[in-house]
Amino acid sequence: MKAPELGIKIGVHEHGKRNSIADLGVKVGHTTLIEGSDVRTGVTVLLPPVKNPYRERLFASTFVMNGFSKPIGFVQVNELGYIETPIALTNTLSVYTVASAMIKHMIELNPDLKSVSPVVMECNDSYLNNIRKMAVKEEHYFEAVKNASLDFGEGAVGAGTGMSAFEFKGGIGSSSRVVEISGEEYTVASLVLVNFGKREDLTVAGVPIGLELRDYPGRGSSAKGSISMVVTTDAPLTARQLKRLAKRAVVGLARTGGYAYHGSGDVVLAFSTAQTVPLDKEPHPIGFLPDNALSRLFKATAEATEEAIINALLQAKTVEGNGHVRYALPVEKLLEIMERYGRLEKA
Amino acid sequence: MKAPELGIKIGVHEHGKRNSIADLGVKVGHTTLIEGSDVRTGVTVLLPPVKNPYRERLFASTFVMNGFSKPIGFVQVNELGYIETPIALTNTLSVYTVASAMIKHMIELNPDLKSVSPVVMECNDSYLNNIRKMAVKEEHYFEAVKNASLDFGEGAVGAGTGMSAFEFKGGIGSSSRVVEISGEEYTVASLVLVNFGKREDLTVAGVPIGLELRDYPGRGSSAKGSISMVVTTDAPLTARQLKRLAKRAVVGLARTGGYAYHGSGDVVLAFSTAQTVPLDKEPHPIGFLPDNALSRLFKATAEATEEAIINALLQAKTVEGNGHVRYALPVEKLLEIMERYGRLEKA
Amino acid sequence: MKAPELGIKIGVHEHGKRNSIADLGVKVGHTTLIEGSDVRTGVTVLLPPVKNPYRERLFASTFVMNGFSKPIGFVQVNELGYIETPIALTNTLSVYTVASAMIKHMIELNPDLKSVSPVVMECNDSYLNNIRKMAVKEEHYFEAVKNASLDFGEGAVGAGTGMSAFEFKGGIGSSSRVVEISGEEYTVASLVLVNFGKREDLTVAGVPIGLELRDYPGRGSSAKGSISMVVTTDAPLTARQLKRLAKRAVVGLARTGGYAYHGSGDVVLAFSTAQTVPLDKEPHPIGFLPDNALSRLFKATAEATEEAIINALLQAKTVEGNGHVRYALPVEKLLEIMERYGRLEKA
Amino acid sequence: MKAPELGIKIGVHEHGKRNSIADLGVKVGHTTLIEGSDVRTGVTVLLPPVKNPYRERLFASTFVMNGFSKPIGFVQVNELGYIETPIALTNTLSVYTVASAMIKHMIELNPDLKSVSPVVMECNDSYLNNIRKMAVKEEHYFEAVKNASLDFGEGAVGAGTGMSAFEFKGGIGSSSRVVEISGEEYTVASLVLVNFGKREDLTVAGVPIGLELRDYPGRGSSAKGSISMVVTTDAPLTARQLKRLAKRAVVGLARTGGYAYHGSGDVVLAFSTAQTVPLDKEPHPIGFLPDNALSRLFKATAEATEEAIINALLQAKTVEGNGHVRYALPVEKLLEIMERYGRLEKA
Repeated sequence: MKAPELGIKIGVHEHGKRNSIADLGVKVGHTTLIEGSDVRTGVTVLLPPVKNPYRERLFASTFVMNGFSKPIGFVQVNELGYIETPIALTNTLSVYTVASAMIKHMIELNPDLKSVSPVVMECNDSYLNNIRKMAVKEEHYFEAVKNASLDFGEGAVGAGTGMSAFEFKGGIGSSSRVVEISGEEYTVASLVLVNFGKREDLTVAGVPIGLELRDYPGRGSSAKGSISMVVTTDAPLTARQLKRLAKRAVVGLARTGGYAYHGSGDVVLAFSTAQTVPLDKEPHPIGFLPDNALSRLFKATAEATEEAIINALLQAKTVEGNGHVRYALPVEKLLEIMERYGRLEKA
Repeated sequence: MKAPELGIKIGVHEHGKRNSIADLGVKVGHTTLIEGSDVRTGVTVLLPPVKNPYRERLFASTFVMNGFSKPIGFVQVNELGYIETPIALTNTLSVYTVASAMIKHMIELNPDLKSVSPVVMECNDSYLNNIRKMAVKEEHYFEAVKNASLDFGEGAVGAGTGMSAFEFKGGIGSSSRVVEISGEEYTVASLVLVNFGKREDLTVAGVPIGLELRDYPGRGSSAKGSISMVVTTDAPLTARQLKRLAKRAVVGLARTGGYAYHGSGDVVLAFSTAQTVPLDKEPHPIGFLPDNALSRLFKATAEATEEAIINALLQAKTVEGNGHVRYALPVEKLLEIMERYGRLEKA
Repeated sequence: MKAPELGIKIGVHEHGKRNSIADLGVKVGHTTLIEGSDVRTGVTVLLPPVKNPYRERLFASTFVMNGFSKPIGFVQVNELGYIETPIALTNTLSVYTVASAMIKHMIELNPDLKSVSPVVMECNDSYLNNIRKMAVKEEHYFEAVKNASLDFGEGAVGAGTGMSAFEFKGGIGSSSRVVEISGEEYTVASLVLVNFGKREDLTVAGVPIGLELRDYPGRGSSAKGSISMVVTTDAPLTARQLKRLAKRAVVGLARTGGYAYHGSGDVVLAFSTAQTVPLDKEPHPIGFLPDNALSRLFKATAEATEEAIINALLQAKTVEGNGHVRYALPVEKLLEIMERYGRLEKA
Repeated sequence: MKAPELGIKIGVHEHGKRNSIADLGVKVGHTTLIEGSDVRTGVTVLLPPVKNPYRERLFASTFVMNGFSKPIGFVQVNELGYIETPIALTNTLSVYTVASAMIKHMIELNPDLKSVSPVVMECNDSYLNNIRKMAVKEEHYFEAVKNASLDFGEGAVGAGTGMSAFEFKGGIGSSSRVVEISGEEYTVASLVLVNFGKREDLTVAGVPIGLELRDYPGRGSSAKGSISMVVTTDAPLTARQLKRLAKRAVVGLARTGGYAYHGSGDVVLAFSTAQTVPLDKEPHPIGFLPDNALSRLFKATAEATEEAIINALLQAKTVEGNGHVRYALPVEKLLEIMERYGRLEKA
């Protein structure tokens, strides 16, 4: 269950129908790799709501909070202001394999394509996964694409299979928010791959859960971690504005106990589903929501990202692998503590 | 009183002796301008712990979370990696007057100076201050320099005189943290000029104070706001590393309820007091703390900044001006709420 | 006379009617300060083709090639993607005085203005000008505004009065280019304040003029220098695209012998006159020229900037001041050399 | 033959002994792939002068002049200020394959490695190469590593096999410069993968060769192109300073006729061989050459890069492939024209 279903209220804005990035029409697919005692990894693919992402490009931008990270494609997104492929998530050493697969995917779809800039982001799952085995193959990307659906799993699935968070089990989480601006409704959603955090730092809706659960079993190896965040909205924003949005994901991150420690690669990709980018050589009108309208979207981005992180923890099951175990966040205990701190909403 | 004296614990690291930027030897001076019914503004100057900042330059960098802001000098700090003047804070329309004064200050000190890059940051105090009067004069900078001391006031003083925060009275706040890394002690401190925030967003040590005090009188005009943050440390960091440090100030900001709304210019300057920058043309050894050592400094930066913001609110007295009033944060009520949420430490 | 009138052809595109930034409707005004033996400085103001620049904002961006520079306003331009004031140029220590004057100008025009971000750029004229005297006063900005015209002087005027270039006399130069893209005509223009360069580096249309004129009198103090460049176009570009345009000004700079030496602050501001920025909270269509159309504009920007730099040198008269003399580039000799290298076009 | 051997003098500084990046101890290896009628591509690897680049990291930075490019690893280089792998060059669609191979290379060398950030840069050789075939395999990276030598080929080899430049044959070029600063000698070198330019833009030592050779056969498809540049020096520079150096590569690029057209991904990686980066958690002295000493290094970077680009053209043989032909720059004609313009030095 996600935070709201448990009575945990993060922020003030309402979430969308699915409380996930699917509220923007983004389909998500996972390939989960669990093999032997030491392979716990996978691939997650996000398909923007267009037929052919190479032809129907969407305005986009990025923000790097901490660049101890190996994201693929950020240089071009920042220059041209759009994405031209799906977005994939996987483990640190497999981003290149997944990017190669994505190129083949785009080549298949586009008979004249000779250049394309894949977007792949990563976290390091080497605590639960024998990352040196490089178990992710190109076929796993294609499998994830085939699995893509508006109705997708979260937690220890896909790229999230081997991830850790606050020395609990981490993984994939998503959440959305709906805001009204001058009579128009806009949706913002966040999907995150969570793999960061020291136990003691975990904060849920302001409550110092990590300090309370300091002695809960399973601590260890907090140092290496990262978070990859994808933010999307149906507001018609330019690339410059999407960079502003991307920065606000970090506000949500900070509120969960994210300090962007040295070894934690914390990066954000933001895109808008509102319109496709004109690609010829003639002037065209594009939709533009003035910056004066953005404050609510900023807060909604922070809230959706904060909840997405917590949702990843809430939904991730205990995983053992590579000689280690990461326990699921003990939800019953969590709720008890939340109640004690006066932060649990009644059903 | 600052947060710790009231039993409010922010973060896990200990603060320094003075719990302020003075722990790094930085002297702070204020000129507070209260004239007639509508002038509520001022100047605050930070003097780095060197005799002549133009000759004894300190490694520095900046981070812009939200550039709806008019900081002076950031372009050069980022290129050259140092500051070569004091740092001043004032209102939005007065940064240029203060920068001119700072130039004259540096000209006096340095008979051969023909180029210098002042650093001045600002927030917009136009709610309590008739900012169009441009009441700050060059002499007010020099007065603030004269007033500079290790023992300086916080709250509604100097540049903080007319500032608002979360629809309460804002102003100047400071805090420090001490961390141990490989047997060495390092101090990080933050001094902030706080002028941002919607009432409902105020969060103190994770507790939703703003929601609890929603109906407390004095709300209004939350939209325009900003925060200028100065972070300093005695760790020997290069400019690149100080940019990393500067980014973590934003983690502290986010934890108080800062969303970097559209109209809020949220900027950070970070510098190191550990050594001066060689200025000739020969190779020199400089001190360098490897990035692997930075995680604790990152967390300490976030904690010091979070507490500095709360300290500004805790110490700012009610101010009336320009037809408006900003009430001091009601400390008794605050403590009651903190206790109710289980977040008040016993004396 | 400008380069084309002398038979010097820079680039392949045609220039506009006035071969200056006035081709975009930008008016330029100068205040030239020549007082006693040691004041040789001034102010130059560019008025975008709108009635009230604070209300009719224009999309804009910046690029910093070398940030040993003190430009005012770049942080906000980069965040919000527009300019909201005129653009002024002056000497290094006077940018703050001019910015204060510009604020007063905007306050007068806009009775409700409480925040505004002036844009002022600078070079250091301390070779010919006693810069420590700070001779520029706020009135000089207003005088420059009054003098603004589509028909403006170049060379040793306004902010260019005391500037040097390649150890010759530098100053203000401008040039424009017209390009056709998909049947539409667009104009790009550049106005530069030139104050950089070692004699030996001067290159005119590829010819090593500086090496040829190595022994021409007047060398000295090449080390300190800078260039401030303003690029504008009537193509409907977003801020992201204008940053791309701004970067190409540096291509023109490089072709004249600009190496962006350590002490040379080389900065660019680019804006589009095509449309004003919507400022409310509702979605609006804005004009957008796709990036696929930009290559010609990029080359035109480089050409206009290269020629603008040469035009500054060609039009600047010899100036004596502050115990030094900067000779005008000897045009007859220049033409002789150009001819010898086969680079002079016949009338 | 390289430019100086032909009497073409680019810049004023002397080159090093090998006039290549080998002057810094960097070994370069190529794998050249010529298969059937349509595979014309390859891999080039640069090995920094250390035993294990993952352990002996070198300070580094990047500059993106035009981000229509797919470089791997730039985000982490910019954050941490170092490289931790060799540097590879290949075609646009093969960077991910090469990066995967590089990971396996580093895994072999380092039994405990669980995270590593490869650096791979690219240009698009699809005019001469059937890029959609993705002919580059992981083994080709390892072959290039094996081939690495201080004595390496330039022109149409390795990653340069299928590249075009100014509608002539492009490829790999390198050059170096030696400068004296305060009695110390420093070397700067550049190695470039050249694949950009319209015929008419080609400029050699200021001479408009492209205009003169406009009618020389072989024009076509100038639009798509890029250049990847690697700059290195033995001066002890920090990452911030190396970014400054990287920017000056663009000055050299501009002087050859590079306009960074929309479709041209123009990127630079700069690193210093002077020292390895401390990796523990204790303060260490590092060597630091003050910024005041950098102007000569800046000019030398521009010169080395300008000559490296011309050297690529001078050494690339005619290549036919994929239904197209790119002719070698006709050196005899070039020298004739250079002489006519008075720019050929006598032997």
